[in-house]
Amino acid sequence: MAKEKKTPRPKAETPKGFRDYFGTEVTERAEMLRAIAAVYHRYGFEALESSGVETVEALGKFLPDVDRPNEGVFAWLDEDEKWMALRYDLTAPLARVYAQHRNDLPLPYRRYAMGPVWRNEKPGPGRYRQFYQCDADTVGAASVAADAEICALLADCLEIVGIPRGDYLVRVNNRKVLNGVLECMGLTDDAQRDAVLRTIDKFDKVGEGGVRELLGKGRLDVSGAYIDGVGLSDEQAEPVIAFLTSGRLETSETLANLRTAIGESKVGAEGVAELEEIATLLEAQGYGPDRIVIDPSVVRGLGYYTGPVFEAELTFEILDEKGRKRQFGSVAGGGRYDDLVKRFTGQAVPATGVSIGVDRLLAALREKGRIGGTEQGPVVVTVMDKARMADYQAMVAELRQAGIRAEVYLGNPKNFGNQLKYADKRLSPVAVIEGGDEKERGVVQIKDLILGAKLAEDASLEEWKERPSQYEIPRGDLVVKVREILGLYS
Amino acid sequence: MAKEKKTPRPKAETPKGFRDYFGTEVTERAEMLRAIAAVYHRYGFEALESSGVETVEALGKFLPDVDRPNEGVFAWLDEDEKWMALRYDLTAPLARVYAQHRNDLPLPYRRYAMGPVWRNEKPGPGRYRQFYQCDADTVGAASVAADAEICALLADCLEIVGIPRGDYLVRVNNRKVLNGVLECMGLTDDAQRDAVLRTIDKFDKVGEGGVRELLGKGRLDVSGAYIDGVGLSDEQAEPVIAFLTSGRLETSETLANLRTAIGESKVGAEGVAELEEIATLLEAQGYGPDRIVIDPSVVRGLGYYTGPVFEAELTFEILDEKGRKRQFGSVAGGGRYDDLVKRFTGQAVPATGVSIGVDRLLAALREKGRIGGTEQGPVVVTVMDKARMADYQAMVAELRQAGIRAEVYLGNPKNFGNQLKYADKRLSPVAVIEGGDEKERGVVQIKDLILGAKLAEDASLEEWKERPSQYEIPRGDLVVKVREILGLYS
Repeated sequence: MAKEKKTPRPKAETPKGFRDYFGTEVTERAEMLRAIAAVYHRYGFEALESSGVETVEALGKFLPDVDRPNEGVFAWLDEDEKWMALRYDLTAPLARVYAQHRNDLPLPYRRYAMGPVWRNEKPGPGRYRQFYQCDADTVGAASVAADAEICALLADCLEIVGIPRGDYLVRVNNRKVLNGVLECMGLTDDAQRDAVLRTIDKFDKVGEGGVRELLGKGRLDVSGAYIDGVGLSDEQAEPVIAFLTSGRLETSETLANLRTAIGESKVGAEGVAELEEIATLLEAQGYGPDRIVIDPSVVRGLGYYTGPVFEAELTFEILDEKGRKRQFGSVAGGGRYDDLVKRFTGQAVPATGVSIGVDRLLAALREKGRIGGTEQGPVVVTVMDKARMADYQAMVAELRQAGIRAEVYLGNPKNFGNQLKYADKRLSPVAVIEGGDEKERGVVQIKDLILGAKLAEDASLEEWKERPSQYEIPRGDLVVKVREILGLYS
Repeated sequence: MAKEKKTPRPKAETPKGFRDYFGTEVTERAEMLRAIAAVYHRYGFEALESSGVETVEALGKFLPDVDRPNEGVFAWLDEDEKWMALRYDLTAPLARVYAQHRNDLPLPYRRYAMGPVWRNEKPGPGRYRQFYQCDADTVGAASVAADAEICALLADCLEIVGIPRGDYLVRVNNRKVLNGVLECMGLTDDAQRDAVLRTIDKFDKVGEGGVRELLGKGRLDVSGAYIDGVGLSDEQAEPVIAFLTSGRLETSETLANLRTAIGESKVGAEGVAELEEIATLLEAQGYGPDRIVIDPSVVRGLGYYTGPVFEAELTFEILDEKGRKRQFGSVAGGGRYDDLVKRFTGQAVPATGVSIGVDRLLAALREKGRIGGTEQGPVVVTVMDKARMADYQAMVAELRQAGIRAEVYLGNPKNFGNQLKYADKRLSPVAVIEGGDEKERGVVQIKDLILGAKLAEDASLEEWKERPSQYEIPRGDLVVKVREILGLYS
């Protein structure tokens, strides 16, 4: 007889770079999104949810010049021979939504959005290919008042989710100031400009000395590799250094330093004036430099930003994978992008917004032990007699109707020890037991598992010793007694 | 001079079959998901969130026998030459998650999950390629108590989101009974069995007479097309008819009829016994046939179900696109699927669960006018003097700190009429005005837009007439007065 041909079993694996989230990981994120949405809402933003899928054409940046436009995005060809892709952020879809619905939307259009985004990038420790963003944007507002508001909003959001004042800083810069510095340097060669920008972006890592070397002849990396420099003379590099090191505790001093750094540049002067206005507006709302600072070292997104840029940084230290102390770093960022809608309509529409990296923020709170606790499981009604399942179901129905989380043990009831092990694993506060004898006498056994765990932990405590962790109560008192154990009357 | 080459503008369009959701469409769904999650949680289920992307191998059903396995799913080839796809439901990912993490999970594993799923299907009116599901499943429970519980859970969920008792019905059937009927008919030819199953599925549409015709010689469709029949004799078809028409108001009568319909079939008898046990368990928890009924006409998912199947139907009538009355129909369904985990592990793991079609449920509530209202917009502080933006920002900061939704008008302030139009479009309750004169006198103008709208609607009402809709208040009373208008003191 021919053997039946077996299809190989599929592997039970999340795709590379993706992961599953369990229990409190899910509920804590939902809670955070809700808290942030409430702040966005209070600031006047309206909810928007677009789909995870967009045309590659609408997403932009990833236009198909190769056979498959999967640089950075997950993309596929649909049945109409159009390239579709998973959104890689919530800003590109917003530009599409605004361009598509602009006749029906108020102007300015203020929306918030939250949800997963996908990146087809090399995954790393803590870096996944799907993660949550939570954005607020104002489309159609040229005033830097819109930018200032976003900074205040960001500070409020961080505090509402549990980052206390002093543990974060919203840093603000302006791309126009940066452009002013480049202009003042007389840099016209695009490649050289880009090289300078990339160098500025490394300031946080390599410091002033490192930037000086990288702008000049080059630098020996910590890894021992030699990094070629941009090739500027010390004199040429000076404005960049002046710019990067212009941050002071006093905003007025920072602004004065920036004015020097940009020299005669008109766009630079405009940028500094905008920063000054932002600082004034924030001051008027009570947001001082203990929460929001002008910081020239913020470069952020060499991509589509055209004016003010902002970044929220957590300033407390954590231990990295190798046990070294480091600052937690950036958890949110944004800025002004005046050209994204123009791609669709031809008309420039000024816009500004922020994106909060919710998963990074959750990781930060977990690092600090502010979330990540375990959650109490359900009351477990055990099954002593399979034939009396209806009795047990009636008990949980009563408990649930009283608002108590409860369930009957639904596994194989044969081994009673397994039932109690299950209750332990679920972190159940109470197990309820009703055998034939109890049934006859109209009572149930209550096993106080919270107390039981405390006794097991520290059996010497007199106060615990005197209390039995398992006892009998009238069946009719079930709900009242369980409420009492759960502290619902206290 | 050569003209600069222009890249054509991208189209601002959602991909075909996808849509955008605005304002209350988003918040009402979030609210519904939260309400359902709370019920799932109370029943003892734990949250799980897996990613939107799975390997096609793990999803199953869509294994690549063609170049591109995009039948029904959105799929693409990743850099490792593996097919990836967007999940098409939340059950297939659960089977993968359970198989992958089973050593760490409690048994039974009870989880709920909610989120978007994607189908690569032809879109139609009200049918989109991305929609939300909200599931609860128990993995590792062979007892039909788990199935009964899911039915009770489903009823509770419908009521919590605003479907009153009497407007819905959870219908329960059992695939084993169906198999018993087929066995009793002596049908061994797979093609013929499938044809019979497809016919049974049409019972709701064509009724008893239609099913008789379709099981026999065939039937002239309403469209005028002739549908070929299965080719059974009247006698052969009788058990199917007996089965389909066995539903009665009294559960005991339905069960007696089913016992007749399955004849001597052992699997059929098992199925009827399970239905009886489910009915008993539900009775014990107080769920009678006004909420949950045994209904043999539920076929549901000719796919992976192996035992009890359930479907929640809304029983009220709505008007369809053509203005005809029809029942709203199914909004949730589920059943027992004992073989999904086995695909991965080789070991059978009994499982049962339900999926609520949240978007359909929202559509139903909207049809009934129970949700879908508009939401009050923010208080809008208008800009009379661009140079005093800081003053206006200070006002909204005060309002926001008092918990009031507020914003400064951030568009071009030149045309004051546009500012009021904006406030109208946003459904703002109050506009605040402070010109130079007001500033000097320490007052602001309050425009009560709720009252204004009422006056415009019905100017004859004396009580409205006496109240001016715009008046002056001291600047210092701003928060108190706005709270009063919003009814926050009442």
